[in-house]
Amino acid sequence: MASDLHIHSAFDRDLEAVQAMIMKMGGMVEAAIADAARALETRDDELAEQVRRNDRAIDALEEQVNAECARLIALRAPIASDLRTVLTVIKIAGSLERCGDFAKNLAKRSSVLSQLAQIPGASLAIRRMARTVELQLKDALDAYIQRDAKLASDVRQRDAEVDQMYNALFREFLTHMMEDPRNITACMHLHFIAKNIERVGDHATTIAEQVIYLVTGMMPEEARIKADKTAFAGGDE
Amino acid sequence: MASDLHIHSAFDRDLEAVQAMIMKMGGMVEAAIADAARALETRDDELAEQVRRNDRAIDALEEQVNAECARLIALRAPIASDLRTVLTVIKIAGSLERCGDFAKNLAKRSSVLSQLAQIPGASLAIRRMARTVELQLKDALDAYIQRDAKLASDVRQRDAEVDQMYNALFREFLTHMMEDPRNITACMHLHFIAKNIERVGDHATTIAEQVIYLVTGMMPEEARIKADKTAFAGGDE
Repeated sequence: MASDLHIHSAFDRDLEAVQAMIMKMGGMVEAAIADAARALETRDDELAEQVRRNDRAIDALEEQVNAECARLIALRAPIASDLRTVLTVIKIAGSLERCGDFAKNLAKRSSVLSQLAQIPGASLAIRRMARTVELQLKDALDAYIQRDAKLASDVRQRDAEVDQMYNALFREFLTHMMEDPRNITACMHLHFIAKNIERVGDHATTIAEQVIYLVTGMMPEEARIKADKTAFAGGDE
Repeated sequence: MASDLHIHSAFDRDLEAVQAMIMKMGGMVEAAIADAARALETRDDELAEQVRRNDRAIDALEEQVNAECARLIALRAPIASDLRTVLTVIKIAGSLERCGDFAKNLAKRSSVLSQLAQIPGASLAIRRMARTVELQLKDALDAYIQRDAKLASDVRQRDAEVDQMYNALFREFLTHMMEDPRNITACMHLHFIAKNIERVGDHATTIAEQVIYLVTGMMPEEARIKADKTAFAGGDE
């Protein structure tokens, strides 16, 4: 580390501490998503239960980040870009907490699904999608720590890939349901899982956009206009 | 108004301005949900399109709230409960922006649904659910403005009602899908709509919890442990 070459203010030190919390939180959320997807694929109810239990630690960490940021603002009275950074940290923590909730919900549904008819290929496709958003989330947080607008921009671009995976799954589930009504319940749950994973991708994108804003002072052009295409797809086109 | 009896600090004045923005944003979100639900029921594509267009104004207002809060923190350097209040405002604005997105998504799906088979009673039930969450949201914001922990507590309790409505609809949609595969596509979209409305209720609850925290200094006991029951319902119990 080159930190001994760098003059650290009290604000920088506090910010680093809170950023370490964010990175820890990010690691926990990535692990939760990976474990939940694995539990789904291997029908491992115990692992699913563990993911659900662990969500409390993620929630607690968010509260800690919020408290620490409030303390930092009150104590160091940051202004301009320093203040913007702290407010961004609060938003990132909020996004991560939501992603943790999605992982928990995935784990819950995985416990239900292990009792239902198996849909061929579904859990593998879901796991692939989960891996993609995990990496998106990881890169979004790395982009934040390194203030790397290029990496953040890359994370945003990759969201289209996740959306494509989701749209493909949506059509596949519709087909399975139409083919055999006994698949309907399982497909409804799988569909929700896919949607929630896609939402994790959206949160990664939001984090990436905030990094771009932090570094460049401007929100990326087409931010927020991304649409959920299934709303228009009429289901199977 | 008794404001002439009250000594207003510069902070109070700024906070009032930002609170006015929040109330305006809340009104816009409530209207968006109501209009989207009405567009669904009356198959009014033009109204749905209008809801989608109006979402940009909600997004813009959130950015304005964020900027104003940052300015307020930098300028007035609030501490303790004042700072907590400003951070709560930022969170509430974030929740409202998400609710606006749900309304927009509802409007999009309503345009798709107007081309599909009608599911008897569905749009009426959805509209009833929408009205319930609109009121929840309105009361949560009123509770914030009046710092009324009792009203906030009441909003939280009422979330169970919304969850029940959602669970009933979930079962109903499953039944329709199993009865006739031609209902599947429409029911998938309706199900998403119901889920998104239920999520608006969750956001209203989150706002209510923050009000309770703001007034009492403590988060309500069972905050965050509320579960989506369909994850356990296996679909039709």
